Amino acid sequence: MSQTDFDVIVIGGGPGGYVAALRAAQLKLSVAVVEAQHLGGICLNWGCIPTKALLRASEINHLLHDLPAYGFKAEGVSFDFKKIIARSRAVSKQLSAGVAHLLKKAKVPVFNGYGKLDGTQANGRRKVLVSQDGAAPTTLTAQHVILATGARARVLPGLEPDGKFIWSYKEALVPEEMPKRLVVIGSGAIGTEFASFYRNMGADVTLVEVAQRILPVEDEEISQLARKAFEKQGIRVLTGAQVGTLQKTATEVHIPVTLGDKTETLVADRVISAVGIVGNVENIGLEGTKIQVDRTHVVTDALCRTGEPGVYAIGDLAGAPWLAHKASHEAVMCVEAIAGKTVHPIDPTKVPGCTYCRPQIASVGYTEAKAKEAGYKVRVGRFPLLANGKALAMGEPDGLIKTVFDAQTGELLGAHMIGAEVTEMIQGYVIARTGELTEAELAETIFPHPTISESMHEAVLAAYDGALHF
Amino acid sequence: MSQTDFDVIVIGGGPGGYVAALRAAQLKLSVAVVEAQHLGGICLNWGCIPTKALLRASEINHLLHDLPAYGFKAEGVSFDFKKIIARSRAVSKQLSAGVAHLLKKAKVPVFNGYGKLDGTQANGRRKVLVSQDGAAPTTLTAQHVILATGARARVLPGLEPDGKFIWSYKEALVPEEMPKRLVVIGSGAIGTEFASFYRNMGADVTLVEVAQRILPVEDEEISQLARKAFEKQGIRVLTGAQVGTLQKTATEVHIPVTLGDKTETLVADRVISAVGIVGNVENIGLEGTKIQVDRTHVVTDALCRTGEPGVYAIGDLAGAPWLAHKASHEAVMCVEAIAGKTVHPIDPTKVPGCTYCRPQIASVGYTEAKAKEAGYKVRVGRFPLLANGKALAMGEPDGLIKTVFDAQTGELLGAHMIGAEVTEMIQGYVIARTGELTEAELAETIFPHPTISESMHEAVLAAYDGALHF
Repeated sequence: MSQTDFDVIVIGGGPGGYVAALRAAQLKLSVAVVEAQHLGGICLNWGCIPTKALLRASEINHLLHDLPAYGFKAEGVSFDFKKIIARSRAVSKQLSAGVAHLLKKAKVPVFNGYGKLDGTQANGRRKVLVSQDGAAPTTLTAQHVILATGARARVLPGLEPDGKFIWSYKEALVPEEMPKRLVVIGSGAIGTEFASFYRNMGADVTLVEVAQRILPVEDEEISQLARKAFEKQGIRVLTGAQVGTLQKTATEVHIPVTLGDKTETLVADRVISAVGIVGNVENIGLEGTKIQVDRTHVVTDALCRTGEPGVYAIGDLAGAPWLAHKASHEAVMCVEAIAGKTVHPIDPTKVPGCTYCRPQIASVGYTEAKAKEAGYKVRVGRFPLLANGKALAMGEPDGLIKTVFDAQTGELLGAHMIGAEVTEMIQGYVIARTGELTEAELAETIFPHPTISESMHEAVLAAYDGALHF
Repeated sequence: MSQTDFDVIVIGGGPGGYVAALRAAQLKLSVAVVEAQHLGGICLNWGCIPTKALLRASEINHLLHDLPAYGFKAEGVSFDFKKIIARSRAVSKQLSAGVAHLLKKAKVPVFNGYGKLDGTQANGRRKVLVSQDGAAPTTLTAQHVILATGARARVLPGLEPDGKFIWSYKEALVPEEMPKRLVVIGSGAIGTEFASFYRNMGADVTLVEVAQRILPVEDEEISQLARKAFEKQGIRVLTGAQVGTLQKTATEVHIPVTLGDKTETLVADRVISAVGIVGNVENIGLEGTKIQVDRTHVVTDALCRTGEPGVYAIGDLAGAPWLAHKASHEAVMCVEAIAGKTVHPIDPTKVPGCTYCRPQIASVGYTEAKAKEAGYKVRVGRFPLLANGKALAMGEPDGLIKTVFDAQTGELLGAHMIGAEVTEMIQGYVIARTGELTEAELAETIFPHPTISESMHEAVLAAYDGALHF
């Protein structure tokens, strides 16, 4: 008979859940994962990973239409949309299989089914019921249960995905064909990435945002530059825009949008609703426990502990920021604490965020506005990629790097980037924030030439004595 | 009459020279630059920058031959070699003009001509003679003179560039047409970049190295992986290879190469000689001074001071590593010291190195072998890009990240990378080395998902408890 009692049971096999299991196994804890659908969760199957395969496609399509600038020529440039989607799915599948392989190698059993806390306890062990397809549930027990059931797209009334006209991120990842006219509602990372992808592939795209600017969590200057870049690419951007009741005809959707005192009706083949996400708090046995839920998220302390001893929540289920790397970091921290190691709570100002549109966007720490709100006197540096040799050589001169320093201590408070490859570059500033480096240390750092990353150095200098190359 | 007396005169307008001038101007020193040819020096005109434009071309050519893998199609793919070269020259010209603009904006006069120290002094001021085209020299004076005349290709007997068959980097950057058969002698960064570029553009390339491995300054594992990748691309790699006396016919070159006890004759249309560089120590007035020259390089102390008070040497002229970012960092340090600021000598183990071939290579600090030679007990981590989701999504799964830690203190001693975008990523490890971060701090750092840079985190974990995703 197979094992049913564990040190740790993880409910959910997404980037929080499976990383928790892998780390637990490294620390010699006995651990099992309960997952109903795909190992790797939304991130791997319906989020981060497949969208990056699409990003690659949109970068290629852009390049193919700009070949003469580089001395190249090609005729009959075309793409097979089904193949692009199929490649994206294949990458997801490969990585999901990779997670299964990692768990197997680590000897972590995976129970296929929906996991649910059972209120009763036996000898101080918590019970978890695993059910699938209406069969009688399997009962597992553990000393510690980590809830990592993730989140799903928020559905607004009137914007329910209907399998045809209205898409969530899921439908947007597996379209039957390219929409000609697309309206994206919501300009957070998800909405922006889809708007960028579909525009780069040739669709007519309108991006609609209720807030006064797109990418509202980013630094205001970055938002403005992103908008400018998108508009230059032909994306129509509407901000401060209220969406009314959609009307569907046999072939299209009419979307009334109110800006100030004017209402305009957009017409589209497809609408992507990207208006946030909600935690999967249902049917996991929270009822009747001391576990609190606040606006669809499980309430935890800084070490991911819920109101029930021995029960933890991590990742999207535990609230913002809804980022896979935050989930997997919480996973490691939570398991290390269970194993008795000394751990440090996550500092949200040291968690980077990336948006994989074209141009790319990446940031960490305080925006200029947030730093001022928090009472800091700031010094701000800016360096445009236009003044960077490698960016020019690569034909990617659009972009800006902005730094925010504490004027009193010289500590780097935040960094905000838009441009080519910035999602791969932001980690340098994250390391700087983790090591609490000051401008003096960053100014002393020798960045390799010729790279776009040299602009990270210049943006530091720009906040003090002045950039050298601008 | 224009100004002829300055606080600082910089001889040489390359990345060392012009940055010294810009920093001096920022620090309110009066400063002039003497440059005979191009502002921006070799780096901007015949090195770093134009080769990056070529790198972009070779990446595009590679992609255009791999389109079906991404769901794209194109016919009649071709390139106009002259246009590719012209684009590379245009980028150089734009940046050289940019340097002129920066100097003008900073009100730094540029004297066109060859600068030379004059042995005599007047009132404690050093004289610099500027001559051009045999005209009578102009005399300038300054309290401080910074020598930044750079370096040039080393010429071995029998391998002299002949304007036809044998190229230095300079001819290799402005070829009349694509060579069909190319032999590159020397596999340092320059030789390797040209071998990679011409191979990716379709030439038949042989890379010949006298040492036992290519890229001999890199970590041995990285050298091996680079060799493997190049051979897979069809580059023939010969190591431990002695080149004999070349024979030229009317249309080709015969290159006898001895490996062990066997001699083979390679036949090529063109040969690139990339066997190192020598400092430009001639005709700059070193004779009769206390300035010492060691193997074509001016001897300096850790603060770039030569044997003559008030005379400094920076950049390639002052010896290895021959890197533009080392030159510009020395420039800043040297000028800040002149201005009375506290400065820190450069630690060569904190200077990154990059090779812009395909796949890219980047490193900083100790190789595993060098760390052991230096007496460290090491912990080594490795993470293959094959296990990285973004690398797979981008279709770039070839590569490795290797870390070397001090087993006793946990300090990151070195990092070595081969793969897509690593030249933009290495700065994170450089920041870590500058901040003297340990594995614990790097493990705590949250790298954004999904990025290739997450592999930098995994390579840290791999040196200790083990990577999570491999």
